[in-house]
Amino acid sequence: MPSGFKASGIRAGLKASGKPDLALLLAPEGAICVGTFTQSLVRAACVELCIDRLKTNAGSARAVLINSGQANACTGERGLLDSVCATNALAEQLGLCPEEVLICSTGVIGEVIPLEKLISGLDPLVKELSDCGGSAAATAILTTDLVEKQIAYETYLDGRRICIGGMAKGSGMIHPNMGTMLGYITCDAGVSSETWTAMVHRVIERSFNSITVDGDTSTNDAFIAFTAGLPLAHQHLDTLEVGLTLTAQHLAKAIARDGEGANCLLEVKVLGAETDSSARIIARIICSSSLVKTAINGCDPNWGRIIAAAGRAGVFFLPKKLSLWVGTYQLIKGGEPLQFDRKAVSVYMKQQMNGAYLNDDSVSIILKVGDGAGAAKAWGCDLSDQYVRINADYTT
Amino acid sequence: MPSGFKASGIRAGLKASGKPDLALLLAPEGAICVGTFTQSLVRAACVELCIDRLKTNAGSARAVLINSGQANACTGERGLLDSVCATNALAEQLGLCPEEVLICSTGVIGEVIPLEKLISGLDPLVKELSDCGGSAAATAILTTDLVEKQIAYETYLDGRRICIGGMAKGSGMIHPNMGTMLGYITCDAGVSSETWTAMVHRVIERSFNSITVDGDTSTNDAFIAFTAGLPLAHQHLDTLEVGLTLTAQHLAKAIARDGEGANCLLEVKVLGAETDSSARIIARIICSSSLVKTAINGCDPNWGRIIAAAGRAGVFFLPKKLSLWVGTYQLIKGGEPLQFDRKAVSVYMKQQMNGAYLNDDSVSIILKVGDGAGAAKAWGCDLSDQYVRINADYTT
Repeated sequence: MPSGFKASGIRAGLKASGKPDLALLLAPEGAICVGTFTQSLVRAACVELCIDRLKTNAGSARAVLINSGQANACTGERGLLDSVCATNALAEQLGLCPEEVLICSTGVIGEVIPLEKLISGLDPLVKELSDCGGSAAATAILTTDLVEKQIAYETYLDGRRICIGGMAKGSGMIHPNMGTMLGYITCDAGVSSETWTAMVHRVIERSFNSITVDGDTSTNDAFIAFTAGLPLAHQHLDTLEVGLTLTAQHLAKAIARDGEGANCLLEVKVLGAETDSSARIIARIICSSSLVKTAINGCDPNWGRIIAAAGRAGVFFLPKKLSLWVGTYQLIKGGEPLQFDRKAVSVYMKQQMNGAYLNDDSVSIILKVGDGAGAAKAWGCDLSDQYVRINADYTT
Repeated sequence: MPSGFKASGIRAGLKASGKPDLALLLAPEGAICVGTFTQSLVRAACVELCIDRLKTNAGSARAVLINSGQANACTGERGLLDSVCATNALAEQLGLCPEEVLICSTGVIGEVIPLEKLISGLDPLVKELSDCGGSAAATAILTTDLVEKQIAYETYLDGRRICIGGMAKGSGMIHPNMGTMLGYITCDAGVSSETWTAMVHRVIERSFNSITVDGDTSTNDAFIAFTAGLPLAHQHLDTLEVGLTLTAQHLAKAIARDGEGANCLLEVKVLGAETDSSARIIARIICSSSLVKTAINGCDPNWGRIIAAAGRAGVFFLPKKLSLWVGTYQLIKGGEPLQFDRKAVSVYMKQQMNGAYLNDDSVSIILKVGDGAGAAKAWGCDLSDQYVRINADYTT
């Protein structure tokens, strides 16, 4: 964990399953905080509160409380009151102003937080705070996730250790249009608030905003990035951004790989577009196509679906310039289908699918759409019958 | 069938399954024709040919040849040559100019038409032409469809019988952005080309462009509407448009109900929006949400997903003005969730799902987003594990 940061996670009895459900992240004094939130019109009470407090406090914050089990979205006035109540109680425990405390909730939409249980949990939660509490926190924020998602990178700059830590959760309702379900990054490099804000927004585009599981944007999406530390020399900012990008991409890919019912990570790279952002639009449309996702599930190199998805992305390209690879196998060149070994490509897909989870492998699709310099990657997963079963019976 | 029109459908051996695969629609002399086609950048050769000929011929055409089994999309120069070749051969048989003959293809992307078989089929196809050949044609255009989709309406205007006939196909890769997979309407009312064009475009928005099965737009989407007959008095145009709308909506809903793996038709009505078109955007986003579709499949009144989908539609509304009904059960009023009988709503959903196919019933969702006059409906279907199975193994 970056120096100065502490975390904890406990069972507060919010989830019927009895699993850990309350987490806390504490940043050192003077921490800069950038938060990005769902762009859905229907936002949870906690999202409203975070946006409000970060604005009031000019981008500084000290703590984030995270409860899992109830989304506290579409809960009207009561939802907002509960969020205020919970954060005020925590602020008192920590000796902070209420405005310095944020809250994120995740779980079923329309369900309110069992507030008494949460308040009773604050004392043990604060007592558990430690500089090695990251794993406990990463576990307590999960809902339908199968695995916890965390990562840390470190390097030495100016003869000093710089550390970046990150955790995230998310498995369904994943098609972020800002941050994703819940993502957190901490860092101990001292940079200006302007630099940090710009850097974090660039990184989000290349990570959380480049994944999709099911095309549905959540009411509670939140990504929050803290940094606090001794000032970092200007010449190291590029290195810091590389580290931040690796951290955020690791977490974003972990969410896609753990997509509900998913058997593999799908990585789509689009090259030769006019701009990076048009490449990203095409890549994300391919990743979110149900027909592409089911073809991946069936290890079926049905390239027509990939091309059809690209064609409806709303980004101009010349179909006769298309080239397509699945893994290292080229399927299309100059817009014309090539003869290819369908069996071999299917075997490649099957191998990646079987090994994906353990070896961080993925099914790779590369689409070249022209001669431009624009390129981007997006990540998703296959669509399985398990996805349908998981989601057909979620609340009943 | 509207007077003057003829149709036929035969087995030409294009499909490996030996099912009917070649259809012909012949319009009387002087017919006006409006064609609308996929807006995908990746378009089949036949789509290019139709657009080109309708432009050259100023919106008049006499015949459409339809082959099923091969989409003839992404087939390069050869694809276009095959389309030209097939239509020229048919024009010669029928004694028409090549420019008066259109062609639509449907099937697997990347596969070329077995041209010799198609050409050999033209002679029997023309011999079969009759004014009661509509059913044979409607059967020959199907691919993964489980049922044929056709309808006819008639009325008496100016003391004269006016008839509208329609047929369509489509089951997967359905998220039309113009016409849908394949849709055809014929009519025997004489109206001006301008009137017919404007009317058809309005009707398409309220029918084919309001359905979705899987969010994927096809490379071959085509909707073609002919009319030819004695002039119709101006005061009857509204009646004609009602008939056209009913015809097109019947076909569009039939496609959604026959969506791959679907168990029911989902009808989403959005009220109180600022405009009809913003209502339609919200309705269609709800219909296309994987999470809403899986909840329908599980007969699960998980309203949070409906609201979350509406929130990401990109259309402004005030969440506190939302009201929501599933069937006749109200779940949300003034933005706040109501207590409701979850079991009863689930039973309603199950009943509709079981009866849907036979009784033309559907699971109904009504969302009121404000006090505006804008309203629209969209149609879709549930997402089942069968959808995944059908699509995971399509080409291998």
